[in-house]
Amino acid sequence: MTTQQLIQQIQQKKSFLCIGLDVDVTKIPKHLLEFEDPIFEFNKAIIDATHDLCVSYKPNTAFYEAYGLKGWQSLEKTINYINQKYPEVFTIADAKRGDIGNTSSMYARAFLEDLNFDSVTVAPYMGKDSVEPFLAFENKHTILLALTSNEGAFDFQTKISGEKELYKTVIETSKTWKNSENLMYVVGATKAEYFTEIRKMVPDSFLLVPGVGAQGGSLAEVCKFGMNANVGLLINSSRGIIFASNGVDFAEKAREEALKLQQEMGQILSK
Amino acid sequence: MTTQQLIQQIQQKKSFLCIGLDVDVTKIPKHLLEFEDPIFEFNKAIIDATHDLCVSYKPNTAFYEAYGLKGWQSLEKTINYINQKYPEVFTIADAKRGDIGNTSSMYARAFLEDLNFDSVTVAPYMGKDSVEPFLAFENKHTILLALTSNEGAFDFQTKISGEKELYKTVIETSKTWKNSENLMYVVGATKAEYFTEIRKMVPDSFLLVPGVGAQGGSLAEVCKFGMNANVGLLINSSRGIIFASNGVDFAEKAREEALKLQQEMGQILSK
Repeated sequence: MTTQQLIQQIQQKKSFLCIGLDVDVTKIPKHLLEFEDPIFEFNKAIIDATHDLCVSYKPNTAFYEAYGLKGWQSLEKTINYINQKYPEVFTIADAKRGDIGNTSSMYARAFLEDLNFDSVTVAPYMGKDSVEPFLAFENKHTILLALTSNEGAFDFQTKISGEKELYKTVIETSKTWKNSENLMYVVGATKAEYFTEIRKMVPDSFLLVPGVGAQGGSLAEVCKFGMNANVGLLINSSRGIIFASNGVDFAEKAREEALKLQQEMGQILSK
Repeated sequence: MTTQQLIQQIQQKKSFLCIGLDVDVTKIPKHLLEFEDPIFEFNKAIIDATHDLCVSYKPNTAFYEAYGLKGWQSLEKTINYINQKYPEVFTIADAKRGDIGNTSSMYARAFLEDLNFDSVTVAPYMGKDSVEPFLAFENKHTILLALTSNEGAFDFQTKISGEKELYKTVIETSKTWKNSENLMYVVGATKAEYFTEIRKMVPDSFLLVPGVGAQGGSLAEVCKFGMNANVGLLINSSRGIIFASNGVDFAEKAREEALKLQQEMGQILSK
């Protein structure tokens, strides 16, 4: 998917919501456990109930790997279902991979080619040759961890590295890499004041923003400091939407929560 | 496996060799492609031919994920084969994972409990709460990326972060985390002079050392600066051993290459 197609989708749906499909079998409605693949049944219902309110789905691969072969099967079925039924939706493999060059190439092919995700999240610690193999895919996107939404972000990311904080060094350095136009960045919502500085460095890039809702970040604050002329934000919510109810009405309740965020986004966009 | 058991194995085998099972289907002998699971057949033959010369096997998960469901099946079969037939061998899931707390917990369970690896490699960028879930498993080990063997290591890892290089900050900080006694560190062989500094910070920890052989590092240099009273090193070689031949004699040739390294190690240990 091109960035332009993503922007068009945002305008049409009046939404820049990304729904995180972080499915924990212990938290899904009991009646789904009768199905052969409860995780896929759960995802399918959530996707059918919310696809017109969000522009992106983001399964975190950890939640699938945790169930071994069966989990990978659920992930494959989920991405195939989205790609076939809702091809306009931007898909993110939240995998946080990164390894030496030839190994990163294997990961890139797995997520961007074989599973056919539109994008994958990548960790920057190993530098240029660990990220460039992901950037080589046309009309695919690499979402680099810059400033994450967890407490541990302050251990290294905000420490001064050279002349500035490490997350700034990561962003600045990444702009010099080959095919850097395919980069987006993860920036946690829990630190809205940081968006001003980040926008100076990457005015045009999309930012994937976790941490709204369960982790305490404010949507209005993030938009105030982080939005650009093309919106340039994908706001992720996972647990707050997908686990809104664990009864038979789970998909309906998920839609209600997604609708609240979409309406808030619609208002912000109309200003 | 306890660290003591690993040390005993090193003394018995006079080896601190780790063999990287980074299996690329395009590089394995053609006759194996007739089998239902060529990757597993390849691994099994390599393992049977080398288990007395090495103390550890390290499959890099990227090479298995690249083949989707079939790849995960090959990985499961490989780790089960080692655990059943050669339970004395220390196993490493080279996965380079790391995510927010609840997500890292899923990864930790997947690799340390379900697949039952002895250890897993973890990326430090997201800090304390992304690593501690891995450290919580008793007699399991978390191998933290410190200084990697690729060129991109100089992008961020060796940049000054606070008062010292980032990789030193990572090592020093990690020592304050809960259950830090379960930590080992990845330190690339291509930078032997760095071992002196690292040994000052973690005199007792095991270091997993990639980059000997194909990537140009010297075994003698690494041992000179990196060895401690309990050896404290696991030297990894992947391509140089497993792809020594792509003919029907591949396992035999792999053994020859492993033997060369083991003999060199035996000489170093006898000094």
